[in-house]
Amino acid sequence: MKVIIIGGVAGGASCAARLRRLDENAEILMVERGPYVSYANCGLPYHIGGVIEKESSLLVANENTFRSQFAIDVRSNCEATDISPADKTVQLKNLVTGEITTHPYDRLVLSPGAVSVRPPLPGIDLPGIFHVRTIPDSREIRRWIGEKTRTVKSEPKAVVIGGGFIGLETAENLVHRGFAVTLIELSDQVLPPIDIENARVVEAHLKKHGVDVILNDGVAGFKQGANGSLNVSTRSEKNYQADIVILALGVRPDTALAKKAGLETGERGGIRIDEQMRTSNPDIFAVGDAVEIKDFITGEWTLMALAGPANRQGRIAADVIAGRNSKFRGTQGTAIIGLFGTVAAWTGVNEKTLKRMGNTDYEKIYFYPNSHASYYPGAKPITMKVIFRKSDGLVLGAQAIGEDGVDKRISALAAMIQMRATIYDLEEIELCYAPAFGSAKDPLNFAGMIAANILNNDMPISHWDTARKGFMLDVREPMELAAENIPEAINIPIGQLRGRLNELPRDREINVFCRSGQRAYFATRILLQNGFKAKNVTGGMLSSALSSQPDTKK
Amino acid sequence: MKVIIIGGVAGGASCAARLRRLDENAEILMVERGPYVSYANCGLPYHIGGVIEKESSLLVANENTFRSQFAIDVRSNCEATDISPADKTVQLKNLVTGEITTHPYDRLVLSPGAVSVRPPLPGIDLPGIFHVRTIPDSREIRRWIGEKTRTVKSEPKAVVIGGGFIGLETAENLVHRGFAVTLIELSDQVLPPIDIENARVVEAHLKKHGVDVILNDGVAGFKQGANGSLNVSTRSEKNYQADIVILALGVRPDTALAKKAGLETGERGGIRIDEQMRTSNPDIFAVGDAVEIKDFITGEWTLMALAGPANRQGRIAADVIAGRNSKFRGTQGTAIIGLFGTVAAWTGVNEKTLKRMGNTDYEKIYFYPNSHASYYPGAKPITMKVIFRKSDGLVLGAQAIGEDGVDKRISALAAMIQMRATIYDLEEIELCYAPAFGSAKDPLNFAGMIAANILNNDMPISHWDTARKGFMLDVREPMELAAENIPEAINIPIGQLRGRLNELPRDREINVFCRSGQRAYFATRILLQNGFKAKNVTGGMLSSALSSQPDTKK
Repeated sequence: MKVIIIGGVAGGASCAARLRRLDENAEILMVERGPYVSYANCGLPYHIGGVIEKESSLLVANENTFRSQFAIDVRSNCEATDISPADKTVQLKNLVTGEITTHPYDRLVLSPGAVSVRPPLPGIDLPGIFHVRTIPDSREIRRWIGEKTRTVKSEPKAVVIGGGFIGLETAENLVHRGFAVTLIELSDQVLPPIDIENARVVEAHLKKHGVDVILNDGVAGFKQGANGSLNVSTRSEKNYQADIVILALGVRPDTALAKKAGLETGERGGIRIDEQMRTSNPDIFAVGDAVEIKDFITGEWTLMALAGPANRQGRIAADVIAGRNSKFRGTQGTAIIGLFGTVAAWTGVNEKTLKRMGNTDYEKIYFYPNSHASYYPGAKPITMKVIFRKSDGLVLGAQAIGEDGVDKRISALAAMIQMRATIYDLEEIELCYAPAFGSAKDPLNFAGMIAANILNNDMPISHWDTARKGFMLDVREPMELAAENIPEAINIPIGQLRGRLNELPRDREINVFCRSGQRAYFATRILLQNGFKAKNVTGGMLSSALSSQPDTKK
Repeated sequence: MKVIIIGGVAGGASCAARLRRLDENAEILMVERGPYVSYANCGLPYHIGGVIEKESSLLVANENTFRSQFAIDVRSNCEATDISPADKTVQLKNLVTGEITTHPYDRLVLSPGAVSVRPPLPGIDLPGIFHVRTIPDSREIRRWIGEKTRTVKSEPKAVVIGGGFIGLETAENLVHRGFAVTLIELSDQVLPPIDIENARVVEAHLKKHGVDVILNDGVAGFKQGANGSLNVSTRSEKNYQADIVILALGVRPDTALAKKAGLETGERGGIRIDEQMRTSNPDIFAVGDAVEIKDFITGEWTLMALAGPANRQGRIAADVIAGRNSKFRGTQGTAIIGLFGTVAAWTGVNEKTLKRMGNTDYEKIYFYPNSHASYYPGAKPITMKVIFRKSDGLVLGAQAIGEDGVDKRISALAAMIQMRATIYDLEEIELCYAPAFGSAKDPLNFAGMIAANILNNDMPISHWDTARKGFMLDVREPMELAAENIPEAINIPIGQLRGRLNELPRDREINVFCRSGQRAYFATRILLQNGFKAKNVTGGMLSSALSSQPDTKK
């Protein structure tokens, strides 16, 4: 059996290695248009920043490994220029010699990846404007940075365009390299996969570390400025000087070849595949950033340019080619980003997606647990949002931000979501606990308890947007009010509540809050059992701060 | 309804607070024999070590909180001396005044905890010999340490007796306080919940950090030595000098009161309860370290002195008393311990328990993944063991040791085990990945893939004990053999294997190994597909080192 794999990075390389393990006799040819196979593109921003000093560290497996360990014919600098599904052949072009050859296949695997979005803006080809996608990209950027840090007299300036993963990671790394960084994002938030109130936390953190975050503005064009600098102009007619510009406007599936071969693509612009990675042509498979996959929660087709799913897909394509019945279950979109010592991570569906889908069968909670027992030094608060289905408690998604313990909680939640856990399962979850690592009641137990209290009607909740329009009861202590206060609210400290019930209205809904929601929960229970209509304002003052935080538009 | 709760720490305090939230009208009386309610006993070793400097940090909630926020009558220094189930009364003794009073109850909750094992050894009451169980204990120990570090001229000496959690945590903290620490453990390993080969890793780590670990020896007695020091003699007639002795021989359920009240106890010595925390008397509930609970995996009755389950049990008892149908699902025994910068954690069942039960329907794998992408600085290897059911792939248990990433993996595995996940689910798990946090194929994906390869017969495995008796093939590179070698093995580097198959026997089982098992997997696939009988020696040289590491008996 002759198998050709087009694309030798995550999905393609995984597919090739797995296929060899399953079939010692297959003739496997893997081609990669770039100069390197199986390189760690997730590490590029950190190579730019010097965190990963050596370029060679990014080369996970070289061609020689594939040849000697896997007996795979690997060709880098080799582009597939055409597919003939009728003849079952692929046309390859050697990018060094220009030679074009034709190769027959029994099965073909497309793993072309995604290409960086590059709008046709005036001046976009000026020197000093870069993508962060390949090793040659990072090499050029490092060379450019080296030159600018030597030649620019004052603090060199960088403009990063786009507030997704690559934009933010590169912004951080440019700060580390001594640049004054401006981040320009067209939409109203950074990190599209999280909800806006959590994006605000990330934006505030970026600003605290010197990144000038501009939202709701797009780049209009680039001009050569003085002394070799660039001028970046925006749609709102602002101008930013830059010694380097990073284009991080996202990626789109590279479907050129697939379309040429007449393969079906989907509504999101990726190659359409079935759960066994088969394209509309049963002898052609596709994996990785180029394909549309099913969202594990919503069942919608989605694009997910993540290395984990790409690797799993490559493995599944190999299984199927080798005659096995493997299936891809879809992706939860679990992801994490570290920025200046703080971590944001998420898994499952976000609220804006549910809203877009018109889904109203969900509830959300905000809470602010410590990463570990507060009595053990170094505990850090985590900003957490958990979304669950109202009708049955199924956990749908979660987002968390903090300096410590975020990875653990979102990873465990990802496991729970994968297994279709409910909030009642979260109540019982047994994470690792010792005072330096968690709490006897872990944040995830709390999430389950809070959510179960809501679904059991033990604790109806409200959110700040509606609570502010109703009757508000603040059960914090007077000294806490001095620091931050909601003037419209009545204050009765929790310890006095039972004795002062007569001060509260019996005909109105009472929105109870404290600092984070715990005492308000106790108060809600007291009020409900005394015949009042009470709701806990989820997340308390801490989520009030979130929701009222002004956006960073300039 | 009158509810009396005996014991005001984890389980009792959780029960009291939850019950109040569910029933505003219940009369709740919580008594605690010690001077403090709701204190953080898990923090005591760290208070001794000065990591947690203030004693007050350990007081999670004081009596006043219970009174003001929960309207609960709390009495510390108050011992329940008798229960009359017939009259439904409890006799209480005020330990300060000596006053004895009798109190009626409708429902009674026992949360007496466990008592430290204290064998009647000669000299055990000498000054300088301590338990680490209560705040007064830690206060006394800190006072004693302060005196010894002032008065002992050379390095002060400590003997810690018992290699469980408290023993190890206290040993570490005494090292931090400047003591030369000897740890004496009666059995053949430290940390009873993990398997012996992993305990060896922990023991080596303790020794590296200066703890003298003595296994297979018990303490015979204590004598007053010179200059206020103690002499500790052991069963093997060794003698150790000590300026302080910590007794950490484990705990046993405090069932004195329960037995007096005629309540049933179980074969493990704990109070027998049903899944709703009801004792053999339907009006009396019991929670926490005093009760036997069901092991989530084995279904066996077990004792599990952990704060997490105790809190959950308290909550469930409250639910049931308030008329709800909550049930305890049992415990997985998830736990974690940090020692000198390294972490050991585990969840589910261990191998020795399966062996004791005569269970042969399991397989185990050893592997040594990096905590995150190796190309990102700071990746640390994790020693992992995962145990799963052979017949259907159900994940049964896992143990991990390492400097980084252990908590995340064992916590996620705990979530998977709770949800009855299989190794096929592990293959698909989507943990948080960015190069600083994991790998595109996470260690848990690897665990799933390795295990699935075994169950699919893609990769039969052997273990060192049997492999050593058979034909061994080492597929590492020659330079690796120079560092560490198994002389009986044939060496054919993986890259040469396809060309040298004729050097291998077709009639014998070939045990293939490399450093950690990955290349051996590739080699096993080559051999199997060429008609050889091949098995991968799980964990490779790294687990060989584990299994051959001499024990630390002296």
